[in-house]
Amino acid sequence: MTKTLVSHVGIAVKDLDSAIKSYEILTGSRISEVENVESENVKVAMFSSVGGRIELLAATSEDSPIAKFINNRGEGLHHICIYVDDIESKLRELKKAGIKVIDETYRLGAEGKKIAFVHPQNLNGVLIELEER
Amino acid sequence: MTKTLVSHVGIAVKDLDSAIKSYEILTGSRISEVENVESENVKVAMFSSVGGRIELLAATSEDSPIAKFINNRGEGLHHICIYVDDIESKLRELKKAGIKVIDETYRLGAEGKKIAFVHPQNLNGVLIELEER
Repeated sequence: MTKTLVSHVGIAVKDLDSAIKSYEILTGSRISEVENVESENVKVAMFSSVGGRIELLAATSEDSPIAKFINNRGEGLHHICIYVDDIESKLRELKKAGIKVIDETYRLGAEGKKIAFVHPQNLNGVLIELEER
Repeated sequence: MTKTLVSHVGIAVKDLDSAIKSYEILTGSRISEVENVESENVKVAMFSSVGGRIELLAATSEDSPIAKFINNRGEGLHHICIYVDDIESKLRELKKAGIKVIDETYRLGAEGKKIAFVHPQNLNGVLIELEER
C-alpha cells in the first residue's frame, strides 16, 4: 500500500502576514492559526492538506535559523519533512549508508511529535526533516 | 473537506542514479520508473505517495532549465506543484491579485495533465507549478 511520504514543505518568508495572503490565493485554502515556536524563534503558518502540507516560516529573532537562511540565500524553499515509521531506526540506517544527520537522536517538535533533521550534504542540497508517523 | 494541496516537490540533482539511491534509503520507497521529458531536456524519477510526491529532476542537456538552475544555485529544492480545480481560472485570479505568472495559459505536461508555472517573484522566492486535478 502506498503511504503518505511528505508531511510538509517548509518555506522561509520575511513577512508572514503578506505570505499568508499570497498563499491563500494560490492554494484556495486558509490557514487555521499561526503558531509561535519559541524554541526556534519562529512563527509558523500551516496550510492543511491530505498529504503534503505547506508550512510558512518567519523568524521572530535574528538568532533564528530562518533569519540566517534568508540572510544567506533569500526567501524560498527551506526543507521537506518526510514521514518515517521508526525515527531511531531510520537515523541509524541513514548513518550506516553514509548520509550525514544533524540530530543524532530525535527531539520533540510541535504537537509532541518525534522529529530529527538530516544534513543536506548527502541529499543533493535538500534539508530533510524526519517525522515519526 | 480537506483536499490534497501538493502534487509533488521537485528536487534538481546532478546525478539521477545516485540521488535515487539516497532517496530510496531516506523514504523507504522505490521509484517505479525514470521518465525522459524530451521537451524539457530532463529525466524525472517520481516517488509515489498518497498526497505530495517527491520528484527528482536531472538535466539531459546544458540547455535544460534544470542545468541552468544547478549552475546558478547548486542542487536542491526546485519547485512545488500545487493542485488546482480550474487552471485557467486560477491563472486569472493570480494575475488579478498582482502575482506574476510565467505561463499565460496552461500547457500539457506529463500524462497529458494541464500545467502552468507561476513566477517566484511574488511567492517568496518559490517557483510554483499548477496542475489541474
